[in-house]
Amino acid sequence: MSRPTPLRVDDDELALLTDLYQLTMTQAYWQEAMNEVATFSLFFRRLPPQRRFMLACGQQHAAEVASRLRFTDGALGRLASVDHFETGFLDWLANWRFEGEIWTLPEGTPVFANEPLLEVDAPIAQAQLLESLVMNLVQLETVLASKAVRIVMAARGRPVVDFGMRRMHGVDAAVRGVRAYRTAGLSGTSNVLGGLRHDLALNGTMAHSYVLAHDSEREAFHAFAHYYPQTTLLVDTHDTLAGIRQVIDLMRDAPEVRVSAIRLDSGDLGELAKGARALLDEAGHEDIKIVASSGLDEQAIEALLEDGAPIDAFGVGTQMGVAADAPVIDLSYKLVEYAGTPRVKHSTGKINLPGRKQVYRRQDATGHYGGDVIATRDEAIDAATPLLVPCVEGGRPVPEAMALADTARERVAQALTHLPATLRRLDHGETGYPVALSAALERQVARD
Amino acid sequence: MSRPTPLRVDDDELALLTDLYQLTMTQAYWQEAMNEVATFSLFFRRLPPQRRFMLACGQQHAAEVASRLRFTDGALGRLASVDHFETGFLDWLANWRFEGEIWTLPEGTPVFANEPLLEVDAPIAQAQLLESLVMNLVQLETVLASKAVRIVMAARGRPVVDFGMRRMHGVDAAVRGVRAYRTAGLSGTSNVLGGLRHDLALNGTMAHSYVLAHDSEREAFHAFAHYYPQTTLLVDTHDTLAGIRQVIDLMRDAPEVRVSAIRLDSGDLGELAKGARALLDEAGHEDIKIVASSGLDEQAIEALLEDGAPIDAFGVGTQMGVAADAPVIDLSYKLVEYAGTPRVKHSTGKINLPGRKQVYRRQDATGHYGGDVIATRDEAIDAATPLLVPCVEGGRPVPEAMALADTARERVAQALTHLPATLRRLDHGETGYPVALSAALERQVARD
Repeated sequence: MSRPTPLRVDDDELALLTDLYQLTMTQAYWQEAMNEVATFSLFFRRLPPQRRFMLACGQQHAAEVASRLRFTDGALGRLASVDHFETGFLDWLANWRFEGEIWTLPEGTPVFANEPLLEVDAPIAQAQLLESLVMNLVQLETVLASKAVRIVMAARGRPVVDFGMRRMHGVDAAVRGVRAYRTAGLSGTSNVLGGLRHDLALNGTMAHSYVLAHDSEREAFHAFAHYYPQTTLLVDTHDTLAGIRQVIDLMRDAPEVRVSAIRLDSGDLGELAKGARALLDEAGHEDIKIVASSGLDEQAIEALLEDGAPIDAFGVGTQMGVAADAPVIDLSYKLVEYAGTPRVKHSTGKINLPGRKQVYRRQDATGHYGGDVIATRDEAIDAATPLLVPCVEGGRPVPEAMALADTARERVAQALTHLPATLRRLDHGETGYPVALSAALERQVARD
Repeated sequence: MSRPTPLRVDDDELALLTDLYQLTMTQAYWQEAMNEVATFSLFFRRLPPQRRFMLACGQQHAAEVASRLRFTDGALGRLASVDHFETGFLDWLANWRFEGEIWTLPEGTPVFANEPLLEVDAPIAQAQLLESLVMNLVQLETVLASKAVRIVMAARGRPVVDFGMRRMHGVDAAVRGVRAYRTAGLSGTSNVLGGLRHDLALNGTMAHSYVLAHDSEREAFHAFAHYYPQTTLLVDTHDTLAGIRQVIDLMRDAPEVRVSAIRLDSGDLGELAKGARALLDEAGHEDIKIVASSGLDEQAIEALLEDGAPIDAFGVGTQMGVAADAPVIDLSYKLVEYAGTPRVKHSTGKINLPGRKQVYRRQDATGHYGGDVIATRDEAIDAATPLLVPCVEGGRPVPEAMALADTARERVAQALTHLPATLRRLDHGETGYPVALSAALERQVARD
């Protein structure tokens, strides 16, 4: 029998969560005594066609993790078993720590192609070693928040609850995903550990199994409503409208039973919601809300609400849990400067922006985002706000730059009010949102 | 500043990684003194259109995790802060443990729609509480292995190396995904922690940043090849064929430099591989292999090899790391029996199979899988092999049924030789693979 495989990644294993070449390149830098300051830039070249913007999330958390990354004796012992590393290098790694700067977009900032989400300035052997872990951490939250915010927009102010834990990719995604959902503006989650850790309200109803385990639907409803006053009852186990009549009859016959909502989880949700609303209103239960779930995404929610479906809240799982229509964003972490000289890979057909950068965002007279300028780090651009802020300096987190969860959530809520209409649309297509290069950056590109 | 958020999910937090309703339903079962044995069945209703079969993976690992799931004092303290639970129930949870049976398909078994990957027989309050965690654990490995095995098939015996760590959904997916990749037959991984933990060879080359940090490509090649004899050099930082000429010149001028492979990471990989092969052969380096990477998936690899591209090994990341074309499988964990009586939800247009089940697989005269029969648990089906085996009994893992990693990998390798041609195809379409119900199961469906 195989020894039980742990599910846990301990803090002292995090430094090993990297690609082998980061360590072999770093050993080469050490051997070559290459220790000039490098700048690496984290960005994506193209928006997925299914997205009109991405919400940059996780980068301040990733910077904080980077600032406390260490190679423990345990980790070094395991590296010694890999046939690539010299004792002198492992001794050097024992004292390795990140001592540079990390500039980031604040979490919850809408971001577009070629804009840095994060830039790292540090001796090359420090900056190189962050690559794989930082990319993994930033991608997860960025991909999930960017999907979730579309669902929040589609719901037009109605609560959206995360039901996705069972569909997410493993334990860390399930827990940390709730952090991204909170930032994106979800109202609650069914995920107990995720909600407790990241302070998002816990919501839950009941499953079909509960109804089936009882001798009748009525008996199941009666028991559950008795134990959980003001609960939500799942009405579609056998026949949805008949299930709603059961709820109405039960409330008539057992006045102690009070229900706050019913949940629809299969069938034509729009038609069933209308039928449910009519039955409930006719019985005088205008106060009972209708919750819908079952394979929902932003398009389905938009279509339901366009059609006037009287749905008060949405539970969303499968499509949001893995951001199924765009589960990956092709982030790059590219060397853009070394020893004071801008450097980039010259690839045909790809924009590569050399040197340290800043992103400026303009707002038009109505307060809407009017366009961005990617500039060199130290430029000033008139009438525009610089977005990248230093959040690690001298290897230490800058307290006032680190995202409080509430701040990031508030930032997203604010950003949604500033997005121009073309960015708020949920269909696929070109946004026309202007992202220009500053004159100084243009010169740097031309010179390079 | 927010307190550092841990990345770790401790063992004593795993019981909280569940949906709230699992706990509220369980409390209701406790209050109602409902403790008859239930059977829950884990299956999917439809193959994703991008898959001709799924590889069932992770279910024995999930069963093992379930067998040691406990509610610690710390976990119960956190539950007490949630406004739903009675003290008596939390006391009862302190002694909760899984004492039932779990039947599973052995890891690495090809599986089709409606076939149980896993069935749980236990008092309902035990079986219900496993749902969310088991689904999360099984989905991750099943989704990733099912993508990876297609890439292994496309490569026709050539090594495939996982480069996906940075694209995977978080820390747990990145580590445990390597377990799935190993099962699926990958040759190596760039992921240090994943490879060390799950015993898959570590592979790595170099990044463009290493070349750019040096004053010339030649200098970078010379240094890296010096420190890592027989390494793989990345030749496309500036101009791919010029980069290969640099390698050839360097080996001529510096005879101590020996290179085992070059890697192509951009451009028209097929044309560049042909050009690279010609240059290398002309210089007498027939032994230097060509590795290709850059957005590859099974279709791209198949097309390259169909076109005769002389590529010896593949590095695959983005598309495989999240199984981008089918990142989610709609697993169901359904109550199918309670207190000895088969029960299922009656939904229009959905097949629901009541009662405890077994899956039988037939082989035809040539050894290929000829079709499956889903039967009741205790039936015998002639000339067919029963696939589900008990891997937890009385709450304890059955040692001989627990997958050794090597066994699962070997099972996949064997299965690939038994798959009929229609299942080995990589395009999308109906497979026609027959999955029938036994006469006894048909009667049970009709009776229900």
